[in-house]
Amino acid sequence: MFSTQAQVLYDFTAEPGNNELSVREGETITITNRNIGGGWLEAKNSRGEVGLVPEDYIEINQAKPFTSGGNAAPLDLSFFDSHMPTPASTAQTSNGNDPWAVFDSNASGGFSNNWAAQPEGTETGKTSSNAWPSGGQGHPQAYQGPDIYPYPCLIDLSGAEDDEWDEEWDDVKSSGGYAESEAGEGGAINRGGAHGSSMKIALNKFPGFSKSGPELYLLSKLPAKGTKLSVYTGEVGPVWAYPDYQLDCVVADPKKGSKMYGLKSYIEYQVIPTTTNKPVIHRYKHFDWLYERLLEKFGSAIPIPSLPDKQVTGRFEEEFIKMRMERLQGWMSRMCRHPVVSSSEVFQLFLSYKDEKDWKMGKRKAEKDETVGVMVFSTIEPEGLPDLDLTEVEQKCEQFNRFTKAMDDGVKDLLTVGNEHWKRCTGPLPKEYQRIGKAFQNLSSVFISSGYEGEAVLTDALTAAGKTYEEIAQMVAEQPKKDLHFLMETNNEYKGLLGCFPDTIGVHKAAIEKVKEADKLVAAGKITPSDKITMSKRASTMSYSLQAEMNHFHSNRIYDYNRVMQQYLEQQVKFYEMIAEKLRHAHGQFTTM
Amino acid sequence: MFSTQAQVLYDFTAEPGNNELSVREGETITITNRNIGGGWLEAKNSRGEVGLVPEDYIEINQAKPFTSGGNAAPLDLSFFDSHMPTPASTAQTSNGNDPWAVFDSNASGGFSNNWAAQPEGTETGKTSSNAWPSGGQGHPQAYQGPDIYPYPCLIDLSGAEDDEWDEEWDDVKSSGGYAESEAGEGGAINRGGAHGSSMKIALNKFPGFSKSGPELYLLSKLPAKGTKLSVYTGEVGPVWAYPDYQLDCVVADPKKGSKMYGLKSYIEYQVIPTTTNKPVIHRYKHFDWLYERLLEKFGSAIPIPSLPDKQVTGRFEEEFIKMRMERLQGWMSRMCRHPVVSSSEVFQLFLSYKDEKDWKMGKRKAEKDETVGVMVFSTIEPEGLPDLDLTEVEQKCEQFNRFTKAMDDGVKDLLTVGNEHWKRCTGPLPKEYQRIGKAFQNLSSVFISSGYEGEAVLTDALTAAGKTYEEIAQMVAEQPKKDLHFLMETNNEYKGLLGCFPDTIGVHKAAIEKVKEADKLVAAGKITPSDKITMSKRASTMSYSLQAEMNHFHSNRIYDYNRVMQQYLEQQVKFYEMIAEKLRHAHGQFTTM
Repeated sequence: MFSTQAQVLYDFTAEPGNNELSVREGETITITNRNIGGGWLEAKNSRGEVGLVPEDYIEINQAKPFTSGGNAAPLDLSFFDSHMPTPASTAQTSNGNDPWAVFDSNASGGFSNNWAAQPEGTETGKTSSNAWPSGGQGHPQAYQGPDIYPYPCLIDLSGAEDDEWDEEWDDVKSSGGYAESEAGEGGAINRGGAHGSSMKIALNKFPGFSKSGPELYLLSKLPAKGTKLSVYTGEVGPVWAYPDYQLDCVVADPKKGSKMYGLKSYIEYQVIPTTTNKPVIHRYKHFDWLYERLLEKFGSAIPIPSLPDKQVTGRFEEEFIKMRMERLQGWMSRMCRHPVVSSSEVFQLFLSYKDEKDWKMGKRKAEKDETVGVMVFSTIEPEGLPDLDLTEVEQKCEQFNRFTKAMDDGVKDLLTVGNEHWKRCTGPLPKEYQRIGKAFQNLSSVFISSGYEGEAVLTDALTAAGKTYEEIAQMVAEQPKKDLHFLMETNNEYKGLLGCFPDTIGVHKAAIEKVKEADKLVAAGKITPSDKITMSKRASTMSYSLQAEMNHFHSNRIYDYNRVMQQYLEQQVKFYEMIAEKLRHAHGQFTTM
Repeated sequence: MFSTQAQVLYDFTAEPGNNELSVREGETITITNRNIGGGWLEAKNSRGEVGLVPEDYIEINQAKPFTSGGNAAPLDLSFFDSHMPTPASTAQTSNGNDPWAVFDSNASGGFSNNWAAQPEGTETGKTSSNAWPSGGQGHPQAYQGPDIYPYPCLIDLSGAEDDEWDEEWDDVKSSGGYAESEAGEGGAINRGGAHGSSMKIALNKFPGFSKSGPELYLLSKLPAKGTKLSVYTGEVGPVWAYPDYQLDCVVADPKKGSKMYGLKSYIEYQVIPTTTNKPVIHRYKHFDWLYERLLEKFGSAIPIPSLPDKQVTGRFEEEFIKMRMERLQGWMSRMCRHPVVSSSEVFQLFLSYKDEKDWKMGKRKAEKDETVGVMVFSTIEPEGLPDLDLTEVEQKCEQFNRFTKAMDDGVKDLLTVGNEHWKRCTGPLPKEYQRIGKAFQNLSSVFISSGYEGEAVLTDALTAAGKTYEEIAQMVAEQPKKDLHFLMETNNEYKGLLGCFPDTIGVHKAAIEKVKEADKLVAAGKITPSDKITMSKRASTMSYSLQAEMNHFHSNRIYDYNRVMQQYLEQQVKFYEMIAEKLRHAHGQFTTM
């Protein structure tokens, strides 16, 4: 039996009935089972009580099995204030109502009031303590607000049903159940577990940021490792180097697999890249591993939206699988469209590994990648672009912050409105058309009972009109799935993407603050004037990276919104035309002759 | 000053703030002003308190100025039980939830448990105590249920505004203000004053029935007076004799008039019959007088719907006038379409009096008409139709009762549903489309702020799409006035018409019961065997009258519902086509190129 001591890093309060164990910061506990999965470990406290604790809340007292590159840099950065967002504080803003507020209120005043200091060592150890990441807890960068999109098929999975889905669907359990609460005007359902899961998310490891602040890159003396990422001047300003061939892939053919003599079951998907057209097999866990790697490697420069699955569940297996697949497809396509992400070694590995051995070796290599976190900026090379001064850098950063915040508000507004509309279209409105239809048919039945001759034309027409309104009721109820669904999905995707910006932009803001301190540090003799020049130059590089990323975001946004609006309106037109056609037919059956 | 003593017939409780005076049955009061109008008199009680009392609640202690024909029949009918509906009991059923229940539960058992006896003299005296009827209190025959049709323009006129409208709009005051209460699922507004006014209606005079039970006709020895009303055998069974030319009229050109040096103002309408094409002028009071005459004369045989104005009021003068005129038009057209009503002397007088003198003389003559109440049946002549036996008579009566009750339910159901739909179409639904429109436009504004070049096509299209949804919101809100309005108006008219049937059919039911008693009366020597044969023959005549009336009702119903459904569906088609067209245009502005 595995029996290791561990230190509790954060307070954790057990949820009743979940076999959890409450622990306090500083407490020493004994790990009794490490193979629980889903980000949980079984542990025993000093009073002999046994229960589950989140693995991210504790630090196991043993040697690190792997060496992570992030803190290998031999640089003494202790003279810097600890300005960087810590996982806890970042997650707080992500889970609060306004993750953007931090940047607004401190636009010129620095972050020290908002970001709490935290030692780095603990984080690093944890990150590498498992070969597999504790999947499924989501990314604190991504705004994990309540998903208020009321799919008629979605249900609250809290309580008993949780168990049923746990093993089967990889990692669902770790999201901590689904809380139902009132949200917004119309009392929308709060899905995705804003309470239970968000706490676990909140204190999850945060590899992209936890290893260091931007100072690690700003003053790095190491030569850049890894593929160079060029930024060019395009028509719209700085842009990433786009490949000639636009990669895409298809996620298809979900199959149920099982292991441990059928005790554990899971879904395997085929992922077929358009380059090779050769399918590779992946479980959800693998997607989550990829997400973690991308976040770790690119998260400081590129918003990596979290896997959308926390929001997906369904009453029926097929619905659940279909929706998860649809969203994995959307996530993969977005990643494929990103020139930096799609050309990265880890992404290519995921899409086109040759065999199990190839995959395993590639995985290990990716996990050992040292050019992660802010160090990704060391690989970025602005080609033929002049250095920007700090004012420009700051202006651009502010501009992007304002825009992404405004768009985040706009998208959420549209989601709220769309959600209301969805509810009306699937609830009261069809009921009303149905009642109109019934009232006509009812009146027709009464008329038939009159015994009066020669009113068959009227009664037939009235019955037909009634049935037409019942058909319209049906159409109204089914319509959202045909149009509003895609509008909502696209906006949900953008909500997730936009939720990454406060943190991504936060890295830039923090770097700008560091550069602003440079003069003082030079005066105090802590860095050399040459260091200061390097810092400024690197801030300029970061800015080009951000600008390229924003331009990438904009061009995708324009394409996506044009496409989804076309799709939405096209279906809306068809819908209203079909209603008109049905009513025209009903109209033709009446006669005043 | 006028100062006459009067006896209080029924308890009346003053409504606070309305200058009313509470009085108790049996109390003697002094009339201090008889010229209040609207069914009210000013009176002083023994304690010297002065206030308004409803003229129908009191009996003035003075000689009748006119002799009414109704009770001039020298027949001793005291051996009959008092089976006839009295005004009070009739009104109770009319104002209850189910005015039809009486006939259902007593289908074969007679009515004596339900109809309370009441002396006739008091009623007769009151009927003729005023040259002008106390207009505007409505007809207790008509079901005066809450009007739940929520015109967006309708308001609660209770309280202060009442005074404002009182004089101006003839008789509005007499309806006792408008009570607002919850009705139906959606909490519709109860208009038309179910409380205050219904009590006043309840105890109003009821000329058609109060003068006598059907025995007056069944055993009448008097020769028939007045124009003969023939019933023929048509394709569908017994039918009225229809004129070659279908009379109609136009109610138009409302003008404000005033009298008493401008202290009282009123609206005058032009009524233009299609026969003469020569307009005559009438105030609302005159319509009401006509209604009272028609009710008195034909009410036992023909459902005379009450004037619809109790339900009409509006925030703006023009709206109010327009709506009242529209409904007066509907009422007049329905009367014109009725072969018996439209050919009657009183109706012809109303439509085509030559001058003031002609009108006044005609009025007086009409008020002296003796062939009123059940005596109208004495003028009906079934042409070449065999006498029906009582079983057939009873079966027909039951059949019509069942049908009209079922249709009453169906119509009310449709009104409830239509009302709900009206509320949704004018309330939450357009608000939602507006919010969708705003959300699109809002997102467009955000996009414009991006500073990214080349997205003008998207932002213009998104703004246009947003505006389109705002236009749709407007269309949705205005649509009910274009289609649902007429469907509601027609069904409201039918609700009123159907509400007359319990009383009209009640007369027939009562006659059937009388005929059933005939054997006992012959045995007891109270009537002769020849009287019994006469009674049976006359019941047969009444049945033919009812059948002719039902066939008239059916043919009108078929025409009306065909027409209104055509109109409704035609407008609905246009509505959905226009939405589709607008959206098609909006769709065309997006591009994925």
